[in-house]
Amino acid sequence: MNWREVLEIRGPHIGGAVSGGLDSCTITHWLSEKGFRVEGFTVDLGQPDEENVGAIADRMLACGAEAAHIVSGKEALVREGIRVIQAQARYEGGYWNTTGIARPVTTKAILDEMAKRDIPVLFHGATGRGNDQMRFQLATNFLAPDVDVYAPWRDNEFLEQFPGRAEMIEYCESNNLPIRPAKESRYSTDANILGLTHEAGDLEDVGIPPFFVEPGMGVWAWDAPDTPQSVSIRFEEGQPVEFDGVKMDPVAMFEKANARGGAHGVGIGLHAIENRFVGVKSRGIYEAPGMELLGRAYEYLIQFVYDRRTREQFDALSRHLSAQIYEGYWLDLSTHSALAALDSMSKLATGTITIRLYKGNVYFETADVSRSSMPHGLYTSASSMEDTSGEGAAEPQYDHESSEGFAQVIQVHARTVGKRQRGGYAK
Amino acid sequence: MNWREVLEIRGPHIGGAVSGGLDSCTITHWLSEKGFRVEGFTVDLGQPDEENVGAIADRMLACGAEAAHIVSGKEALVREGIRVIQAQARYEGGYWNTTGIARPVTTKAILDEMAKRDIPVLFHGATGRGNDQMRFQLATNFLAPDVDVYAPWRDNEFLEQFPGRAEMIEYCESNNLPIRPAKESRYSTDANILGLTHEAGDLEDVGIPPFFVEPGMGVWAWDAPDTPQSVSIRFEEGQPVEFDGVKMDPVAMFEKANARGGAHGVGIGLHAIENRFVGVKSRGIYEAPGMELLGRAYEYLIQFVYDRRTREQFDALSRHLSAQIYEGYWLDLSTHSALAALDSMSKLATGTITIRLYKGNVYFETADVSRSSMPHGLYTSASSMEDTSGEGAAEPQYDHESSEGFAQVIQVHARTVGKRQRGGYAK
Amino acid sequence: MNWREVLEIRGPHIGGAVSGGLDSCTITHWLSEKGFRVEGFTVDLGQPDEENVGAIADRMLACGAEAAHIVSGKEALVREGIRVIQAQARYEGGYWNTTGIARPVTTKAILDEMAKRDIPVLFHGATGRGNDQMRFQLATNFLAPDVDVYAPWRDNEFLEQFPGRAEMIEYCESNNLPIRPAKESRYSTDANILGLTHEAGDLEDVGIPPFFVEPGMGVWAWDAPDTPQSVSIRFEEGQPVEFDGVKMDPVAMFEKANARGGAHGVGIGLHAIENRFVGVKSRGIYEAPGMELLGRAYEYLIQFVYDRRTREQFDALSRHLSAQIYEGYWLDLSTHSALAALDSMSKLATGTITIRLYKGNVYFETADVSRSSMPHGLYTSASSMEDTSGEGAAEPQYDHESSEGFAQVIQVHARTVGKRQRGGYAK
Amino acid sequence: MNWREVLEIRGPHIGGAVSGGLDSCTITHWLSEKGFRVEGFTVDLGQPDEENVGAIADRMLACGAEAAHIVSGKEALVREGIRVIQAQARYEGGYWNTTGIARPVTTKAILDEMAKRDIPVLFHGATGRGNDQMRFQLATNFLAPDVDVYAPWRDNEFLEQFPGRAEMIEYCESNNLPIRPAKESRYSTDANILGLTHEAGDLEDVGIPPFFVEPGMGVWAWDAPDTPQSVSIRFEEGQPVEFDGVKMDPVAMFEKANARGGAHGVGIGLHAIENRFVGVKSRGIYEAPGMELLGRAYEYLIQFVYDRRTREQFDALSRHLSAQIYEGYWLDLSTHSALAALDSMSKLATGTITIRLYKGNVYFETADVSRSSMPHGLYTSASSMEDTSGEGAAEPQYDHESSEGFAQVIQVHARTVGKRQRGGYAK
Repeated sequence: MNWREVLEIRGPHIGGAVSGGLDSCTITHWLSEKGFRVEGFTVDLGQPDEENVGAIADRMLACGAEAAHIVSGKEALVREGIRVIQAQARYEGGYWNTTGIARPVTTKAILDEMAKRDIPVLFHGATGRGNDQMRFQLATNFLAPDVDVYAPWRDNEFLEQFPGRAEMIEYCESNNLPIRPAKESRYSTDANILGLTHEAGDLEDVGIPPFFVEPGMGVWAWDAPDTPQSVSIRFEEGQPVEFDGVKMDPVAMFEKANARGGAHGVGIGLHAIENRFVGVKSRGIYEAPGMELLGRAYEYLIQFVYDRRTREQFDALSRHLSAQIYEGYWLDLSTHSALAALDSMSKLATGTITIRLYKGNVYFETADVSRSSMPHGLYTSASSMEDTSGEGAAEPQYDHESSEGFAQVIQVHARTVGKRQRGGYAK
Repeated sequence: MNWREVLEIRGPHIGGAVSGGLDSCTITHWLSEKGFRVEGFTVDLGQPDEENVGAIADRMLACGAEAAHIVSGKEALVREGIRVIQAQARYEGGYWNTTGIARPVTTKAILDEMAKRDIPVLFHGATGRGNDQMRFQLATNFLAPDVDVYAPWRDNEFLEQFPGRAEMIEYCESNNLPIRPAKESRYSTDANILGLTHEAGDLEDVGIPPFFVEPGMGVWAWDAPDTPQSVSIRFEEGQPVEFDGVKMDPVAMFEKANARGGAHGVGIGLHAIENRFVGVKSRGIYEAPGMELLGRAYEYLIQFVYDRRTREQFDALSRHLSAQIYEGYWLDLSTHSALAALDSMSKLATGTITIRLYKGNVYFETADVSRSSMPHGLYTSASSMEDTSGEGAAEPQYDHESSEGFAQVIQVHARTVGKRQRGGYAK
Repeated sequence: MNWREVLEIRGPHIGGAVSGGLDSCTITHWLSEKGFRVEGFTVDLGQPDEENVGAIADRMLACGAEAAHIVSGKEALVREGIRVIQAQARYEGGYWNTTGIARPVTTKAILDEMAKRDIPVLFHGATGRGNDQMRFQLATNFLAPDVDVYAPWRDNEFLEQFPGRAEMIEYCESNNLPIRPAKESRYSTDANILGLTHEAGDLEDVGIPPFFVEPGMGVWAWDAPDTPQSVSIRFEEGQPVEFDGVKMDPVAMFEKANARGGAHGVGIGLHAIENRFVGVKSRGIYEAPGMELLGRAYEYLIQFVYDRRTREQFDALSRHLSAQIYEGYWLDLSTHSALAALDSMSKLATGTITIRLYKGNVYFETADVSRSSMPHGLYTSASSMEDTSGEGAAEPQYDHESSEGFAQVIQVHARTVGKRQRGGYAK
Repeated sequence: MNWREVLEIRGPHIGGAVSGGLDSCTITHWLSEKGFRVEGFTVDLGQPDEENVGAIADRMLACGAEAAHIVSGKEALVREGIRVIQAQARYEGGYWNTTGIARPVTTKAILDEMAKRDIPVLFHGATGRGNDQMRFQLATNFLAPDVDVYAPWRDNEFLEQFPGRAEMIEYCESNNLPIRPAKESRYSTDANILGLTHEAGDLEDVGIPPFFVEPGMGVWAWDAPDTPQSVSIRFEEGQPVEFDGVKMDPVAMFEKANARGGAHGVGIGLHAIENRFVGVKSRGIYEAPGMELLGRAYEYLIQFVYDRRTREQFDALSRHLSAQIYEGYWLDLSTHSALAALDSMSKLATGTITIRLYKGNVYFETADVSRSSMPHGLYTSASSMEDTSGEGAAEPQYDHESSEGFAQVIQVHARTVGKRQRGGYAK
């Protein structure tokens, strides 16, 4: 839809996901000029790089918004972040999906507020090339199917008026809009309590090493302390509940893990050339120290708990959920079902894992496999290579001799394949 | 089968996979006493910790073997190692399967020799608790279905005579067998040019940090140099062909990568609590510096080359092949088919990747995405967030406005789900 | 374990899963002779071919059992049968897993009774070649890990005494055991309310057409009526609740569906050459008219309800659950998780489907897609090829013109592949 | 792109995929009026319902085309059809993808001709709501990335002039275009030698039973003969080579199989509510008697040949390839790789299967499992439930007693789960 269709069909009342930046100012004022009654919604996601969010509201009002609202989203985001950890939902093997998971949280927070005010259309400032436009779109469609989405960066009239950043700055200045003095940056960054994603600008040239990026949540490994540091994380039913023996709530846990991990260069500078939803390749540099610290500890824990069949199914859920987040389908039925399966596994993930942090690395250090600490762990004395008896053991065991029967059974199939088929397929 | 059945059904001629250690000496002599004509086969896999392999042959003869053979396997193993890299076939997320992939190589090398000598039975010294017994078994069944496998560690009579290491030492000493002075070790190690795997002994106690393991192929990260070092690897059609601009053959490539990676702590101390084939959990500590160095560079390369559908299929192949190696099914039809698919992808993996090594870390540094260097890369200017025109571009592009049509199409389904279903599944 | 180990370690009190047939009589008497106190447990699964189950108890007592119990299992089995339908869990594409799903139901029913009596060992009469031995084994291990399983058909002493059927008959006759006059059959059959499975005997020769099998739950298609008959099934939240408009409970529903389907040859004579758990191929002929009738109707229903992502996930769950049933892992964590996911999907499967039965075929006839009847169906007017406007529609729609934007977006990737890659992979 | 952009950027020379119907005539004339030099390309796919294809060329010329070409595509389509059978690539469980697989064949045939004539743009008459538009688009992008695609049904100007069928007829009549007298039909049909797909029109109302569809390739089951008929198909390396013992080439094989299967109602009236690429649900009725006859016979064959691991991988390939066809990605790298894997499996699919056709049903009748006929079959005497010895057998076997060892090994894991986990996940 272009702005004319929006105005004609849905009327002038419109809400916007606004961050207070140049785009937000420009769009808000431009829509006001076109006759819209704009309400701005800014969701507080615990952005580590953010100014006072209250200032954003003031700026939006100065840009012509009829109202400007700050909505709390940090706790909700951290809850979802923990599910990302439980799912080990890293996109294409690395990126912790920290921006992707924030979009439905932001959208839901805004739509809840819009519903109270009967606002029928949501605008956002995501570009027509990226993933975020689709995430805003889909989250809105799933949560509020009667709300329309308006994306100025896909509206020809807006695009023609603002072919680049310079035209926006000129527009804002000529309209006396209170834009912040542009922070010079060689790339753009999206931020929330779970992590930072850097892309575009100089990062688009893959011939340039990414080390010029200045971490916002920690340091590069070479700037980290020379001494390793150990951390113990206790999980109960899949939730991180203790950091070095101190109980804390999820937000405090992330703040602590971000600080500790970031200080050691953990989760700083993850690099991916990834397949965007729209099909093109994109380069991203990521920071997610808390996700990496907690996520790696969690991975070590589930290695004790999930058997092979569970692990295979877990891996499938992990890949599915990662794609769902990345592509904006976090709120569909297939996500809901996958989370139901995941929850039933996570419920067994109780235990304490100690890891060693050292200059970007996370090493397994120890685990307490006593039944009181890790009640559902499968690491038992049956794991030992040395016990040959099986007798008198408190734990289930088998004689080494039984393996001969096992081998006799499985050899039948393998031998038949050897006799009948291998000549037909091996070179 | 027990030794009596073997002797009765297949006769006294028997071949063995022997390493020259305590087990090999004991079994060889014990079988000779029982009336077998034992031929020992030792496969040279470029073990980094190995004594002169020629000495092994002498020792086997002294233990009663009728003949002792050294068989070359290093080149064959490196070829398979490269396929493991192409498949990114890490077991349960971490371990590079360096022992698992060596078993079929060893077995094939020995069976080829045994066939020349008409030896109908192969023995091996793997225990009845682990994975290797099944890998030897299955590889033999697939390659030579008429050859029987005899495993003394699953033969009750042998188990009763040798309940532990002490009885074997006593037996060897009382028979004047030339066993090597036992290297005191708190764990056992399997070694080849691709990597080392450490397990058992003190490692079975997960309350003990793994840092007491003394790396055999490099250093722990904290002992690595304080200065990062960059390395460029060029791959052509999936094969690593140049190391820092110098062409080299695969074995030289691995030796170089092992040395360079190991020096920086790369791939040293990988840790897994893994699901063994027979169902129990097991702890392993791994060293695979060359695999990690080359494997991570390769992963960065394919991120440029594989699109989303290819990547999804690649990920499925990766998991399948990893399980095939781990569980001993490397030689079956499903592996053969998966490798056919993999090869058709790997053929496009041409390019040069520069990585930065620093204290256990491998960071992406740069890639050359010119068509001459990386002819099949998909990272193009269409990836840019900033170009909004699409006009005049040499590369395929789309207008930002087209995204509006895209969004209009995909919103139909999402809105219908929002209207019809979400009330039925969301909490 | 052999019987001597059982007696020594666990004592003489033993429970058995007994059907009252030749095996049950032989084993019960033989164990009594060895000094065991045998209690027989027979689970009523609504076997269509069964004599009065009360008579089984009498016979077991006459064979030396200390006690004989009849346990109800029909309702529990039907509940699981409905989950099989919800999961469309057909093994290797065809067989409805009717025997596989019955084993955990039987085992649970027996173990519950054994627990009341403190019986520490369960015996069963499944052979050492098939799947059922592993299903009894695993179900017992999961449900009652301290109970041991004894399988006479894997005990050498028993096997030597009873190399074949003749020796069992002779033994029973010489001990005056009340075996039933052997029904002459060219194959063996396992039966319960969900279906019959026929295998072994003459069926092992795949050169013999299977049409000599005499259906026990209906007729072959050529013996079915010449007139098609329609049936409407209403499902609510995944449960079949009405048959031709008449509400009925699950057992009645299956009895009705078995009768109706069987009369039309539906689900009679399904044929599979399947991969047994132990690795060998096996031929089975199956009857499951109610499963086929209800299962096909359910499949038609979910086609209206599950979107593409949900369908993909459903298909994965379906395959996983089918393997879990077939291989005896129905009670593990991965099944539990998969069922949690499945349940969250099934909850939306509400609707009425009318099918036409005709000589073995099940054809889709009609569905009522009104929101009152099928509240979560996704088949809407957006499905129409003809409406080109999208305007004024009550349902979400898109203009045909929007497809141009959609096409412009997806062509970027395809064109890049065409330019950069296709030359590298296409022949 | 709209027609003005096409003309401006690429010039007036345009090729079209034309069928000779109302759409083709209208578009051809309309484009000629706009100043295009239109060349029509009609691919002969062995359409069973088609008039003389030569007549189409005449009609196109009369509608203003500069040239009209008939291109042969039947052999190429049959070759792809056999791959569909080898892959068992049925979409969402039923539909044999007969239209989906024809689109890349058609596109390739046309592009080859266009390349000879330097024609830079291809138009097609597929609508903006369906799958075919994307299949034409993508096939063109992959095969000829420099060729543009023009779709009048997504061009606003064309859509406005022709809101419906009536306007096209009026336009053709007023321009004296030689359109065929419209065959009255309650639905639309796409046809080729592999099958027919019927959709739209009255079929969109799922409250109407589909039995009013008049089969074009056979009869409904109730109109088929009362006597079953057997057919033997011999496959060699995955190719059907003999029909009832008579060798024939692939096209003859399909003609024969279509006739025989259709006569018995086999593959007539397959019904699906399917998820279209663009996300909406669609109803299709399908006829594919030859695909069903050959495909079912092939399925029975591979049940003898593929072991469990191969079957699992095959099932994954099957699903992937089916989605690739349906969604228009048949020419990408992931398809190429999947086909490489499939080919290595299909190579072992040699054997003769006899099936019984009866009123829509296909029953397995017999197979010849001799090594001369089915060299790679895995159905051997090891499959027997009855042989308990394993001795002296020509085929690999195992003693029933060995199963005890097998069971002892697998019970360790299951018992540990029972002890440690089940209390944590079971209700």
